[in-house]
Amino acid sequence: MGSTFGHLFRVTTFGESHGGGVGAIVDGCPPQLELSEADIQVDLDRRKPGQSKIVTPRREDDRAQILSGVFEGKTLGTPITILVQNKDARSQDYSEMAEKFRPSHADATYQAKYGIRNWQGGGRSSARETIGRVAAGAIAKKILKQVAGVEIIAYVKQVKDLVVPHIDPNTVTMEQVESNILRCPDPEMAAKMIDFIDKIRREGNSVGGIVECVARNVPIGLGDPVFDKLEADLAKAVMSLPASKGFEIGSGFDGVCLTGREHNDEFYMEGDRLRTRTNNSGGIQGGISNGENIILRVAFKPTATILLEQKTVSVSGEETTLTGRGRHDPCVLPRAVPMVEAMVALVLCDRYLTQKTISL
Amino acid sequence: MGSTFGHLFRVTTFGESHGGGVGAIVDGCPPQLELSEADIQVDLDRRKPGQSKIVTPRREDDRAQILSGVFEGKTLGTPITILVQNKDARSQDYSEMAEKFRPSHADATYQAKYGIRNWQGGGRSSARETIGRVAAGAIAKKILKQVAGVEIIAYVKQVKDLVVPHIDPNTVTMEQVESNILRCPDPEMAAKMIDFIDKIRREGNSVGGIVECVARNVPIGLGDPVFDKLEADLAKAVMSLPASKGFEIGSGFDGVCLTGREHNDEFYMEGDRLRTRTNNSGGIQGGISNGENIILRVAFKPTATILLEQKTVSVSGEETTLTGRGRHDPCVLPRAVPMVEAMVALVLCDRYLTQKTISL
Amino acid sequence: MGSTFGHLFRVTTFGESHGGGVGAIVDGCPPQLELSEADIQVDLDRRKPGQSKIVTPRREDDRAQILSGVFEGKTLGTPITILVQNKDARSQDYSEMAEKFRPSHADATYQAKYGIRNWQGGGRSSARETIGRVAAGAIAKKILKQVAGVEIIAYVKQVKDLVVPHIDPNTVTMEQVESNILRCPDPEMAAKMIDFIDKIRREGNSVGGIVECVARNVPIGLGDPVFDKLEADLAKAVMSLPASKGFEIGSGFDGVCLTGREHNDEFYMEGDRLRTRTNNSGGIQGGISNGENIILRVAFKPTATILLEQKTVSVSGEETTLTGRGRHDPCVLPRAVPMVEAMVALVLCDRYLTQKTISL
Amino acid sequence: MGSTFGHLFRVTTFGESHGGGVGAIVDGCPPQLELSEADIQVDLDRRKPGQSKIVTPRREDDRAQILSGVFEGKTLGTPITILVQNKDARSQDYSEMAEKFRPSHADATYQAKYGIRNWQGGGRSSARETIGRVAAGAIAKKILKQVAGVEIIAYVKQVKDLVVPHIDPNTVTMEQVESNILRCPDPEMAAKMIDFIDKIRREGNSVGGIVECVARNVPIGLGDPVFDKLEADLAKAVMSLPASKGFEIGSGFDGVCLTGREHNDEFYMEGDRLRTRTNNSGGIQGGISNGENIILRVAFKPTATILLEQKTVSVSGEETTLTGRGRHDPCVLPRAVPMVEAMVALVLCDRYLTQKTISL
Repeated sequence: MGSTFGHLFRVTTFGESHGGGVGAIVDGCPPQLELSEADIQVDLDRRKPGQSKIVTPRREDDRAQILSGVFEGKTLGTPITILVQNKDARSQDYSEMAEKFRPSHADATYQAKYGIRNWQGGGRSSARETIGRVAAGAIAKKILKQVAGVEIIAYVKQVKDLVVPHIDPNTVTMEQVESNILRCPDPEMAAKMIDFIDKIRREGNSVGGIVECVARNVPIGLGDPVFDKLEADLAKAVMSLPASKGFEIGSGFDGVCLTGREHNDEFYMEGDRLRTRTNNSGGIQGGISNGENIILRVAFKPTATILLEQKTVSVSGEETTLTGRGRHDPCVLPRAVPMVEAMVALVLCDRYLTQKTISL
Repeated sequence: MGSTFGHLFRVTTFGESHGGGVGAIVDGCPPQLELSEADIQVDLDRRKPGQSKIVTPRREDDRAQILSGVFEGKTLGTPITILVQNKDARSQDYSEMAEKFRPSHADATYQAKYGIRNWQGGGRSSARETIGRVAAGAIAKKILKQVAGVEIIAYVKQVKDLVVPHIDPNTVTMEQVESNILRCPDPEMAAKMIDFIDKIRREGNSVGGIVECVARNVPIGLGDPVFDKLEADLAKAVMSLPASKGFEIGSGFDGVCLTGREHNDEFYMEGDRLRTRTNNSGGIQGGISNGENIILRVAFKPTATILLEQKTVSVSGEETTLTGRGRHDPCVLPRAVPMVEAMVALVLCDRYLTQKTISL
Repeated sequence: MGSTFGHLFRVTTFGESHGGGVGAIVDGCPPQLELSEADIQVDLDRRKPGQSKIVTPRREDDRAQILSGVFEGKTLGTPITILVQNKDARSQDYSEMAEKFRPSHADATYQAKYGIRNWQGGGRSSARETIGRVAAGAIAKKILKQVAGVEIIAYVKQVKDLVVPHIDPNTVTMEQVESNILRCPDPEMAAKMIDFIDKIRREGNSVGGIVECVARNVPIGLGDPVFDKLEADLAKAVMSLPASKGFEIGSGFDGVCLTGREHNDEFYMEGDRLRTRTNNSGGIQGGISNGENIILRVAFKPTATILLEQKTVSVSGEETTLTGRGRHDPCVLPRAVPMVEAMVALVLCDRYLTQKTISL
Repeated sequence: MGSTFGHLFRVTTFGESHGGGVGAIVDGCPPQLELSEADIQVDLDRRKPGQSKIVTPRREDDRAQILSGVFEGKTLGTPITILVQNKDARSQDYSEMAEKFRPSHADATYQAKYGIRNWQGGGRSSARETIGRVAAGAIAKKILKQVAGVEIIAYVKQVKDLVVPHIDPNTVTMEQVESNILRCPDPEMAAKMIDFIDKIRREGNSVGGIVECVARNVPIGLGDPVFDKLEADLAKAVMSLPASKGFEIGSGFDGVCLTGREHNDEFYMEGDRLRTRTNNSGGIQGGISNGENIILRVAFKPTATILLEQKTVSVSGEETTLTGRGRHDPCVLPRAVPMVEAMVALVLCDRYLTQKTISL
């Protein structure tokens, strides 16, 4: 249970970090969309391990194979199956994890919930599961781009206490984001952050940070009161990513320090278009997109797997210590950027299709 | 669409702020639970308007009536219908809102999405809709208490920039929370906050703040990887409440300033029980409850309806001004406390029932 | 669980035969549909008890009250709540049923499943539950009529072994159906059937029969392969009605006696429109409507409640006898006709809205 | 959309008859079930083409490969992915179908619905899609067997107008069913039917028939009033199979010729167990299993693809003729038998898991 996301654009992911492979089925993709494996590969490459010195060195090509749902270069309206085979799986690195729970990892809770777990590399809780999300998200992005020119761009805004001073989400470009291995659009700060992460990596430690995401040209009217408010669906989407600890939209937590008079986004007309002067709402009012840019932030904790000795407990209930081995990310942020974009795209695409149902 | 929440403990709310009434259907409540209207009324009274000088003076008794699903004092396993009639509805206060969009309110987006809206008092986007949530949440709380002794307590932690210095979520009591009209367990700070909100109210302005919520005695194993992680469902739940702008679990946004070594929650044994020394995880690891207290925070923006003149636009697209009328909350927090508890209870109850399905 | 039907046009019914009332919430109804209680009452009157000598004499006005979702005569896009209060509930007639299971009724299985049941009049398993379905179906019919001119007409085709010799589902009219209290469009056979049912009623016995239903002007393309084939959804819909024992579409069970050459519906062009010469498919091919009339039949067993002595078992497990009391239908068919129409309408409306989502 | 079935034991199938492969994801399978590819292969072999002279000669091994969800021979509680690659796909046989609609096939409706279709071999509407169902059904059967000793056996009861005179569903064995290539437990009638089908095959024509299915040892209490009645879910399940035209449970269509007194199943005690003397109810009362054997029948039409000339219309709207080519089944029944079993198993397993959620 819990491996399916969305109602009309419905994604089911599968796979463990070690085993036959990982991937996704996308059911509900509209027919006649031009789609090839290359469309998907772009984002998989942004997500894949081994892409730089500040991510895990595990070597996986992560080549997407489309098994169904596409015919002569176009979607059929039937389920699209995407498979990525696992290759560089070194189970032996994980033999100690078979016996000991990694602190702040999913080992203990999976064992408690299921009474069994694939201890090789994290099993289902591995970040490899997000391959299916990113692949499905690439399709959602393509649809949104085609039907409404929607652009979804995420980027690193903070690493530990290093904060990018000025990024304007209204104008940031994918080129700026992709200009460095961290995916931070401020090159100067990016350099500092990369050095810092590299230092942390050498120490065997890890750090977290904040990813900000903007969705531009989002059609007005997306989101369904009352439980399926657009911000609620976005929150669920990104909070289901590994290592996420917080979500905020628009003014977010800082917004509580404003009064209503300061916080309210006054309306004005820009030609025929209803606009707001400020965007504390983050593009959503009453759970429904208002046509302004959707802006959200996600807090990611430092990676749980570290290469330092920690106190823990064994499967049989004895206190012990564990020193992490295996390949790991010192900071999830560079690879989390495409994941956040994917989850935002899945929500917007699903809500876009839903919105089409309400007119008589 | 969007008015149903949960899979196995499934709540559907209905109703606008003006009209025949509001309420909820709860489908999936286990049979043979002792249940009366009094069980529900307790939380409805904590939520209702007119309860103190710092909330809206609208006078509603908000008496819950159970129309179905209970027989001779016990639940039948069939849908429980709860109806609360609307009484003190002064539509005339809202006639100007029929023509002008309130800034940062749902008026404009509902109009854009549906082409029609009930402009009386906020219609479906009114906080009155949460009556159905709180009523259903009271049932969920009763189940959780009975099956596992779960306690869910929310409270005000911050009003604008006034922060309660020390609250220990592990020991805070409902009595402390209910000891003042703000529902802040620190009486001294509560008094300051109440004075401040009262001052803001007299100015016709509004403020927001932060509600913290703890769930204690939560069974291990709740939450379903990968999309239905417990923190993801909790995030969706509370981000679907009116005026919420941010969510965090455990260390949350502050956690990004720690390294992995500092952030990881080391395991130890407390007798037979696997525990963690710290609780940066907020009671959830890998999307699954680990038996530690679940601790989360929700940011609420200042109420959108203020009694000051604001620039806005009319339904016909002309720039104009609007000075709020009608009765409104200067600060949603005291009434948001039972709403947050309700949403947390709905998630935990649904995940609890789901968890029962996985053992052979 | 199990009280919700549909995905985008989503109906949740509630209520027991005795208690505060019965009804439905319709979530997902498109906004701006003109809707009044009168639209719903027409079908409720066709369903209600006491309408003729061949149905139960229980006296209920079954007046529909719309509690939410409609404003100034139009739907808001928010949940529509319809409540019908229970009035003529004589619980005392059922006191013996508190202790003894009625054969072929739901008493024993509800007791086994839930460990509790409302023994008054059938509780949740009462035909009164279908009030919510018929009310929701009336809304679905109105939408389908407005968007595509869809007509849904059901009628009695067989009572016990009395079969109407010739009805052409392609031309039958609602006036013909409503011309007699049985809802059989053949007046001569209807008279015989009515006499027969009346005789059976006087004997305290009961009979079943077959309802046929046609949906005309159904848009091409409704239905979603592979599990949500249109005939699969229709089958589920009508097989969820009380007392239904069989479903068939198009040629149905008789179709197995044809060869492929005889059964296949050859295509031809009628002007610009693709048609089939025969309609053994019943308007559905590959799970998708093909524009021909949808024709289905439902078998209803004889009513379980009879006024004759039967052997049975008590709640405490002792063999005993039971002689039915209370008011009951000697034949469910006249009242099943609007129920079948409602269920067909719910399916078609839901699939119609779904179909709108697939175009880019 | 429409490729997912079930709520807690949730199956999503994928794949077209030509392309990378077909299969299923099973989400919600309880952990710690012993499971290997051999468990699945048994039923796939009963379903596969080329198994005898009365089914399509297409040569496919249909070897199941488990890509995820199983670790060291046991299920993990995570999604189980089963992939069967397509091998003997002769697309050239279908080139004419690219231009012309096969009568009573899904060609025209897929084209109308999606504006595109994979014309190779039926694409998504091909019986190859049922591989995923049968694979998932094999897992469901194993669970049901293990937890309650449930046995599900289907068999051919009628081919065209050849009806097996006596089969007792209460005692029929899998050995009897599998004793001949038709899967009819009456060897004498089976021989006649096989000869008849072979004759029809040589003529290039096709025939249909009726499959009966019994589920024994079904726990009491499965099925969820009111829309998710057990017979409703079973009806949907089997009516979603290719070529099915009718469904009946227990007495079915014949039951309408009995009076209530004749039809009602009187209760008696067999030791401590509540039983019914007759089983016109087919093991289900009020939508809930009563512990008696569940008995249902499914009508299958003659296969649409025949090797005779038929009138039809081209994609461009011109009247033409088509003579079927490609390999096809003259009668779907022998291969439909495991499909019916699978669908029944999927429903029962899902309802079994659901039932576990209702006790406090």
